[in-house]
Amino acid sequence: MNGLYHLAEIPTPIVERLVARALELRLGAPAKRFPGRALGLLFFNPSLRTQASFQRAGGKMGLDLVQLSGGAGGVWGIETREGVVMDSTNAEHVREAAGVLGRFVDILAVRAFAQGLDIDVDRADPLLNGFRRYAGVPVINMESVLYHPCQALADWTTMNQLEIPRKAKFVLTWAWHPKSLPLAVPHSTLTMAAQRGMEVVVHRPKGFDLLPSVMEDVERLAAASGGSITVSDKLDSLHGADVVYAKSWGSLDYYGKPVAEAQNRAPLRSWQVTRKWMEAAGPRARFFHCLPVRRNVVVADEVIDSSASSVLEQAENRLHAQIAVLESILESRKAK
Amino acid sequence: MNGLYHLAEIPTPIVERLVARALELRLGAPAKRFPGRALGLLFFNPSLRTQASFQRAGGKMGLDLVQLSGGAGGVWGIETREGVVMDSTNAEHVREAAGVLGRFVDILAVRAFAQGLDIDVDRADPLLNGFRRYAGVPVINMESVLYHPCQALADWTTMNQLEIPRKAKFVLTWAWHPKSLPLAVPHSTLTMAAQRGMEVVVHRPKGFDLLPSVMEDVERLAAASGGSITVSDKLDSLHGADVVYAKSWGSLDYYGKPVAEAQNRAPLRSWQVTRKWMEAAGPRARFFHCLPVRRNVVVADEVIDSSASSVLEQAENRLHAQIAVLESILESRKAK
Amino acid sequence: MNGLYHLAEIPTPIVERLVARALELRLGAPAKRFPGRALGLLFFNPSLRTQASFQRAGGKMGLDLVQLSGGAGGVWGIETREGVVMDSTNAEHVREAAGVLGRFVDILAVRAFAQGLDIDVDRADPLLNGFRRYAGVPVINMESVLYHPCQALADWTTMNQLEIPRKAKFVLTWAWHPKSLPLAVPHSTLTMAAQRGMEVVVHRPKGFDLLPSVMEDVERLAAASGGSITVSDKLDSLHGADVVYAKSWGSLDYYGKPVAEAQNRAPLRSWQVTRKWMEAAGPRARFFHCLPVRRNVVVADEVIDSSASSVLEQAENRLHAQIAVLESILESRKAK
Repeated sequence: MNGLYHLAEIPTPIVERLVARALELRLGAPAKRFPGRALGLLFFNPSLRTQASFQRAGGKMGLDLVQLSGGAGGVWGIETREGVVMDSTNAEHVREAAGVLGRFVDILAVRAFAQGLDIDVDRADPLLNGFRRYAGVPVINMESVLYHPCQALADWTTMNQLEIPRKAKFVLTWAWHPKSLPLAVPHSTLTMAAQRGMEVVVHRPKGFDLLPSVMEDVERLAAASGGSITVSDKLDSLHGADVVYAKSWGSLDYYGKPVAEAQNRAPLRSWQVTRKWMEAAGPRARFFHCLPVRRNVVVADEVIDSSASSVLEQAENRLHAQIAVLESILESRKAK
Repeated sequence: MNGLYHLAEIPTPIVERLVARALELRLGAPAKRFPGRALGLLFFNPSLRTQASFQRAGGKMGLDLVQLSGGAGGVWGIETREGVVMDSTNAEHVREAAGVLGRFVDILAVRAFAQGLDIDVDRADPLLNGFRRYAGVPVINMESVLYHPCQALADWTTMNQLEIPRKAKFVLTWAWHPKSLPLAVPHSTLTMAAQRGMEVVVHRPKGFDLLPSVMEDVERLAAASGGSITVSDKLDSLHGADVVYAKSWGSLDYYGKPVAEAQNRAPLRSWQVTRKWMEAAGPRARFFHCLPVRRNVVVADEVIDSSASSVLEQAENRLHAQIAVLESILESRKAK
Repeated sequence: MNGLYHLAEIPTPIVERLVARALELRLGAPAKRFPGRALGLLFFNPSLRTQASFQRAGGKMGLDLVQLSGGAGGVWGIETREGVVMDSTNAEHVREAAGVLGRFVDILAVRAFAQGLDIDVDRADPLLNGFRRYAGVPVINMESVLYHPCQALADWTTMNQLEIPRKAKFVLTWAWHPKSLPLAVPHSTLTMAAQRGMEVVVHRPKGFDLLPSVMEDVERLAAASGGSITVSDKLDSLHGADVVYAKSWGSLDYYGKPVAEAQNRAPLRSWQVTRKWMEAAGPRARFFHCLPVRRNVVVADEVIDSSASSVLEQAENRLHAQIAVLESILESRKAK
């Protein structure tokens, strides 16, 4: 592997090997150690699970860690546009930021959310792609505008751990949230479930479809893997689900217009995963969420605290899945 | 040991063993190493000594470190109330934050100060207790609303190092400060001195008594250890002190009312540990403070720069005492 | 070596040994390892290269790292004035901050930029010198008000790597920038080039001379090493340069007056290193900059993206030069 930007770019047999390795690690296999190698972690946005799991992965693998964050007191503001006259707020271009960090580490992991102002800017995933283009070393996406592949890999691992069949029914359900949230997790969740060959349903209110270019990918992946993808705003679309995966995201129709977006979202507060929803799904249904989650907003206490909830398993599998990815990248670099 | 929230919860013989071990470490004994184990450090508030000493302790013990902080660019805002509808600013509940981190580390150390708005909220020490309840691994209190046990243990260690007898006179003196400061250090200082069996005096202006529930503990501990506890606003109460421990704290009478609290505090600027105060204490008196300290406000340069000052010894002993605590926790977990 | 504050304080033969060692490391020599020793990193200002390279250096050398930063959520605000009544914003004096950290680490590296309000305050380099005075362990300057010696050492290393002769022509050229930038890099660049014995030219607009006390040092160093130093505002002063080193800095005539300073700087936007400037320098000229750099403001894309640009080499050599410094300090401490 030469980095990880989007899970769907990794051939399915390789994804399956990563998942199998993650489950070995979960059962206690020691992580491979790479003394003298270094992992850079660069966060432009908040994080709990991702910071903690990558730091711990570095420790278990004997890696030197280089840890940086954006914002006041962190790294300089980063410009991504090519050819621009840099006389505004950003003090450093991604060409130099990436090029320099690539001199210091063997793998560079980056978190860079959407700016949320202009979808035509954001859809190019400029920070993540800038680092990929100029770092000169493999880059891992720790959640970008478009994708969160480490979460997707952990989710696949969790489904295998729970022995949820590949052909099982997987429902990604939208939920109300006080903020317009990013698209990376729903994009990666859908592509992962489609790549796994599942019967995928997107349960969302009208006006909350995901990026068309990503949905084309999802449909292509579903077709290739023998899975399917349907979209519905009806609660009965949950019926028979093996996984109810909750996530909120903002409407593309109001991208960069937070006031109008919030007004549009306001009537949808009843979109919350409650016991009634889980009963609509049926007795096999597990509850999934990538966390952080707002209790009694996105999911009711009665669901997340029930035995159907797998959220802590998903989170723990972040660690194991990421070690599998780091091992795979470092081994392929050693082979050179 | 299964974590450290409040020193008084640890039986005195075990505290004495920790202190003895801290002094061994101070004299050069190597720290025990626990390769493959991990220590999480989570700071919601500023820190110099605590961050530095826990990071160094982790290094000396061969632990993997997982380091997180609150605020912009750190972890998500954490909700602690049970059953609440999370539609306000906090994005993650402590149930998930603690549960997830407990999957990644063997010990979780947390700093979480008071919010300072409502004593009935703060006295429940909600963040620290939330992490203790839900982490599933031992939690160390790196200063909470109510207690700062690592400081107290370092102070006990420093008194043993200086051969200050168990029955010696220990004066905790209030001092003026431009801000209303938290209660954790005075609470822990008093409980520590009472648990050690000392002749304890609280020298403070009227209206600056500590939490009654904590003072009940202190009196119980003093009785059990053969010590005593008295309260005074007279300078001559310092007479014969072996330790003059300075600390400022806010008045409980004005909790959550900073303007009125400051007005109430304003006439008390003369409450400062000067040479005159040390002379009132007498020739045996050592000056203690947990740091950070405001010079010529809480303590005069002439005192903190004198040979009577032990503040750097106290600070260094943070490292040794914390290693003793970490060793004790990790060994008892290994024994399982 | 007993710390590194200003490169010119290090005798030239020792600087040459450090540079030679940095080049060995660059070619793959393993860094010496000092298990059980600790390096403290304390940042009061933003950093990308410096944080990353010191973290990586610590990893390669087997050091325990203690990492702290200023600002919200970091260490307490630090007072540096002696004898002051600390009733304002700073909560801790550098005497205690330095003294405490010196108990926890073997070497303390500090970044502390100018406050930029009063040159008579800033020229004393109060934070860096406070830490040097009170830490009790060697201190490394990671950029202070006056100097950035690690950058200077990396630049010397880069010139040796590129086989630029000691007597070659070295032009430090001012460039326009939207902000009034600090003096540390131009000061250290000039003293380094003078110490190396180069033919040094400062190309700057009138009114942009550097601190007279520093320039006296530079002239003394040039005389001692057989080099020279001249100042010009003419583009033809670049002619024959082996190195065109670009850097912006604020005018001392308007120190602490940002509005007037910006007005004074406004007509100078044409001061940018373009292809025309590099042609004025001639075919041997390499482009240097310490980074971060604003593209198409300080330097045109056509220059920094050309084969004449050495900026990534300079940045990489930060790592190697700093390891050489750390090795030298730790070895001399071991010898005690």
